[in-house]
Amino acid sequence: MRAAIFHKPYSVTAGERPDAAIRVPSDAVVRVVLACVCGSDLWPYRGESPFEPGPIGHEFIGVVEDVGTEVRNVKKRDFVISPFAFSDGCCPNCQNGITTACMHGGFYPMNGDGGQGEAVRVPLADSTLVTVRGDGYSDEMLRSLLTLSDVMSTGHHAAVCANVKAGATVAVVGDGAVGLCAVLAAKRLGAERIIALSGHEGRQHLAKAFGATDIVAARGKEAVETVKEMTGGVGVDAAMECVGTNQSMHTAIGIARAGAMVGFVGAPHGVELPVVDMFYRTVGVRGGGAPARVYIPELLEDVLEGRIDPGRVLDFETDLEHIDEAYAAMDERRAIKSLVRVGSM
Amino acid sequence: MRAAIFHKPYSVTAGERPDAAIRVPSDAVVRVVLACVCGSDLWPYRGESPFEPGPIGHEFIGVVEDVGTEVRNVKKRDFVISPFAFSDGCCPNCQNGITTACMHGGFYPMNGDGGQGEAVRVPLADSTLVTVRGDGYSDEMLRSLLTLSDVMSTGHHAAVCANVKAGATVAVVGDGAVGLCAVLAAKRLGAERIIALSGHEGRQHLAKAFGATDIVAARGKEAVETVKEMTGGVGVDAAMECVGTNQSMHTAIGIARAGAMVGFVGAPHGVELPVVDMFYRTVGVRGGGAPARVYIPELLEDVLEGRIDPGRVLDFETDLEHIDEAYAAMDERRAIKSLVRVGSM
Repeated sequence: MRAAIFHKPYSVTAGERPDAAIRVPSDAVVRVVLACVCGSDLWPYRGESPFEPGPIGHEFIGVVEDVGTEVRNVKKRDFVISPFAFSDGCCPNCQNGITTACMHGGFYPMNGDGGQGEAVRVPLADSTLVTVRGDGYSDEMLRSLLTLSDVMSTGHHAAVCANVKAGATVAVVGDGAVGLCAVLAAKRLGAERIIALSGHEGRQHLAKAFGATDIVAARGKEAVETVKEMTGGVGVDAAMECVGTNQSMHTAIGIARAGAMVGFVGAPHGVELPVVDMFYRTVGVRGGGAPARVYIPELLEDVLEGRIDPGRVLDFETDLEHIDEAYAAMDERRAIKSLVRVGSM
Repeated sequence: MRAAIFHKPYSVTAGERPDAAIRVPSDAVVRVVLACVCGSDLWPYRGESPFEPGPIGHEFIGVVEDVGTEVRNVKKRDFVISPFAFSDGCCPNCQNGITTACMHGGFYPMNGDGGQGEAVRVPLADSTLVTVRGDGYSDEMLRSLLTLSDVMSTGHHAAVCANVKAGATVAVVGDGAVGLCAVLAAKRLGAERIIALSGHEGRQHLAKAFGATDIVAARGKEAVETVKEMTGGVGVDAAMECVGTNQSMHTAIGIARAGAMVGFVGAPHGVELPVVDMFYRTVGVRGGGAPARVYIPELLEDVLEGRIDPGRVLDFETDLEHIDEAYAAMDERRAIKSLVRVGSM
């Protein structure tokens, strides 16, 4: 089959890979319809994280092509969303809602296939895949369904970890796809005032479309001062950190009011948490990889009913044979997030 | 009046201070009945934190001796508990439940008097002091009421920030007075299994009396391994960090299960939070100084009804003239916490 292959930094191309196939009775094989490139795919792409040459990608929706003998919850021809992590749903960590820490699960492409390919072997298919009801989805709807695989679930995780409540004043640090989805997630949870920190005009526009009420273009200390001024010197009730740098984390903590939580979903690179400041203001942090499998059913309803349209973060598209362009567009910040069209429904 | 005076490290004695007096109409003056020495008083005592020579102490209960013209909620002869911070109760931070970050408040002895003295000027008396109903309290009851001023409220804050729930398996790192109160707070909130990390026999005994179901004497990595083994490799649902060292913080985070919160109330000294580990397991931290003013009314009911007896952490006592012994006993770890008898009811 054809699939994206990571060769070395700045080199991802489409190539031949062994066909995805059932290996154990709890597997399913999903034929991919849409995939996309994650901000975290850019780390190996840029040589910032170690990564083995081979398949890559972990966000996809598609159609079940085959199921192992033990699979009961999904069947051939089901249209499914896969979260970026596979999980058994029954270990203590899954039962506690953290499917990303499943004791028997893992992350694509640990299964042998990447999400950016014609098909994927999905381990623990019964507890991993989420079936989408109905048919005849518009392209916009399919794009939004695709985002539940990771980026929209991750934005929601930021909002959940930040304890966003109805009526709250909140802020999002980071205007990448995750940050924009965090704006949408905060809006969905009823936040009244949503301050988006973004210096990029196109992204400011989408942030506003997603529910941002205020835009702050400043960064670092200046951003903290601006947000403090905007909130009567108090800070925001909930802050969402969606970048992963030391500056963005310190900004998020700096703008959080006393007692607030910072939900951090940008994988930390060089972050040193200001524990003394956190102590003196009772500002907490919690975040990490989103347990997308837990969030998808809830978010799915809102996508299917048209209440949220996170697919709008996908502002560049190509096909599998031009996967290199999908990466380059994001690397060069020409794209917020790249869609990869792989197959038909 | 007589009051404890901090002169320099290892030198705290009783001496003469100007009488506590009303300065502004929102003040009250409280005649101190019982005071005590806090673990945090030991930092300047040991020369570990800068501290101005002068009055010291911030935990006391007593009788209102005088009130300013604006004071409505407390009156002369009321028996009151003062939280260790004074607060206006109406600023945004107070309204958000973080009275320790009150925009117009502060901490003793910023008011001019320390809690370890014959009397204290209490700023913002209406919103700071909590009146205790009834009379004829036993000495045990008075000791327990005194702990609401700080140490029991702080243990409760650890449990609240760690999100301790009924039925949960939890752990407390630290067997000082705060750690022991955190055990009691966790028990009060319905934790089913309470693992106390303590290598000190006398303190283990009190931890058990307060509700600890398991004792782990190991420290550091060995403690993490032991608690992980005891919990089927999962870790605890909530961890309370009550020391403030880098090792105790890493232990608390290490024993927390995926998705758990660590409530940290040990003022951090040299702590570097393991943000990458926290990210990959969605382990959060939140803590700081307890908003005791918010917690006292709730905890007070349980003390008055005899359901909790946190006063048992006070295992050494002396009077104001022998305040140096109160400090020395704690510094030398002969005492968990030192009571200072100042006046009569």
